[in-house]
Amino acid sequence: MTDHRPIGVFDSGVGGLTVLAALREVLPNESLLYLGDTARVPYGNKGADTIQRYARGAVRFLVERDVKAVVVACNTASAYALPGIADEWEIPIIGVIEPVANAAVASSRSGHIGVIGTRATVRSGAYVRAIERAGQTHIVPLQQPCPLFVPLAEEGWTQGPIVEAVASEYLSAFQGSAIDTLILGCTHYPLLKVTITQTLQRLMGRSVEVLDSATATAAYVQEALRRQKALRQTESNASVVYFVTDEPQRFADTGAPYLNEPLEHVEHIDLVT
Amino acid sequence: MTDHRPIGVFDSGVGGLTVLAALREVLPNESLLYLGDTARVPYGNKGADTIQRYARGAVRFLVERDVKAVVVACNTASAYALPGIADEWEIPIIGVIEPVANAAVASSRSGHIGVIGTRATVRSGAYVRAIERAGQTHIVPLQQPCPLFVPLAEEGWTQGPIVEAVASEYLSAFQGSAIDTLILGCTHYPLLKVTITQTLQRLMGRSVEVLDSATATAAYVQEALRRQKALRQTESNASVVYFVTDEPQRFADTGAPYLNEPLEHVEHIDLVT
Repeated sequence: MTDHRPIGVFDSGVGGLTVLAALREVLPNESLLYLGDTARVPYGNKGADTIQRYARGAVRFLVERDVKAVVVACNTASAYALPGIADEWEIPIIGVIEPVANAAVASSRSGHIGVIGTRATVRSGAYVRAIERAGQTHIVPLQQPCPLFVPLAEEGWTQGPIVEAVASEYLSAFQGSAIDTLILGCTHYPLLKVTITQTLQRLMGRSVEVLDSATATAAYVQEALRRQKALRQTESNASVVYFVTDEPQRFADTGAPYLNEPLEHVEHIDLVT
Repeated sequence: MTDHRPIGVFDSGVGGLTVLAALREVLPNESLLYLGDTARVPYGNKGADTIQRYARGAVRFLVERDVKAVVVACNTASAYALPGIADEWEIPIIGVIEPVANAAVASSRSGHIGVIGTRATVRSGAYVRAIERAGQTHIVPLQQPCPLFVPLAEEGWTQGPIVEAVASEYLSAFQGSAIDTLILGCTHYPLLKVTITQTLQRLMGRSVEVLDSATATAAYVQEALRRQKALRQTESNASVVYFVTDEPQRFADTGAPYLNEPLEHVEHIDLVT
């Protein structure tokens, strides 16, 4: 059994490319369609109704292009629009929250887990619910919004005194806590992983396991498709096509650092719902 | 002669409230309609076609509500969408760039003027052209994009070591230059004016006049309406109504610090073009 249809990946902008990169790593035979809603990015500062409307239109766009699964590679959209949208389609619609929440629960010895993300993601409580579902009902995760991490990553300021000062300000919320695992609850944050890990180590006086959603989500997608016997077996003709709602060239320029290679096949499309 | 119609004010988000506040200061008799396109904010990281499309729809929305003038209180939209959109309507469509460019040329003794703004505003060259039109063709303004100033202002980090470090990083571009005047080419930046002014003074070893577009634009609107004999003479019944494309409550919460008072009469509308 094999299913040659591509996997769809959706994010508000370039952040989901961290998930796309992880998918290519573990599923090199699969073709991928990436949709970045760059004309309306970011979602993290918007309201629930708006986020749901945008995510619903984006998932529909990918489903209509005959994908075999959609990865909602955006924490804000996963937090506000799933599982509602998943129920509307027969193919798997997979978010980035459940996979890394499961991984964090499996990794943590103390049972104390920290979560950082956008204001919208933190306010949604989606990580708290996902961690509880994964079996840690007795410990409430400690959450901290870090709104400046996305603009810092987009500015390319991922190391140095300024990002360290910002990280210290945000991560000091975890001082005195018992967390031994921290979830990077935003697809941009892996770009700051070194600074986040080092700052946390300095503040806590001990090491904390830092998990990003990209790796956990890619493993989760692999397992879901394997169970459905929908993995491609052939080792050729895997392609990646990108669709964006703002200028293709701008996306190609901003996205290249996420993949460490130039982005080809970027097409403009409109999402106006 | 009097014209009782309101003045329309448009911005991508809350930043234009600095212009609205200045308008209320100099034109207390005028009713105002404010439109914040909060479901698609920010514009500063988007391409020219997208910005023009959004601005065109926003101006049309206000014109259809029978305003006597529209103030495009958003530097990015002013840079990319004017004068094209202004030519489409009979009422005055006034941007924020020309007024403060004129004020800067009038204020500068050295003729050397600095401009800071979003990447999109700087890249557009709109301030360079406006300053040249105002009479300083012999000196090219020195421009510096400051992408982190907007998220810092929105995070409420307007003073202290982090914003000072970011300001030093950006404003050091002006060290060794002869600028005696700096234009804050983004409606959010007045919230950081104290830090920007002090950091510049420290870096330059002398004071630099810092001008924001809000005050200059309000004076410009007043003069334009006076020439048309379209100012309201009555001293009562001036009202302010806000329209937003994302959640009204979120806008009211974020916007209150810009006006130092609660925002009432906030309505949700859709702009889907």
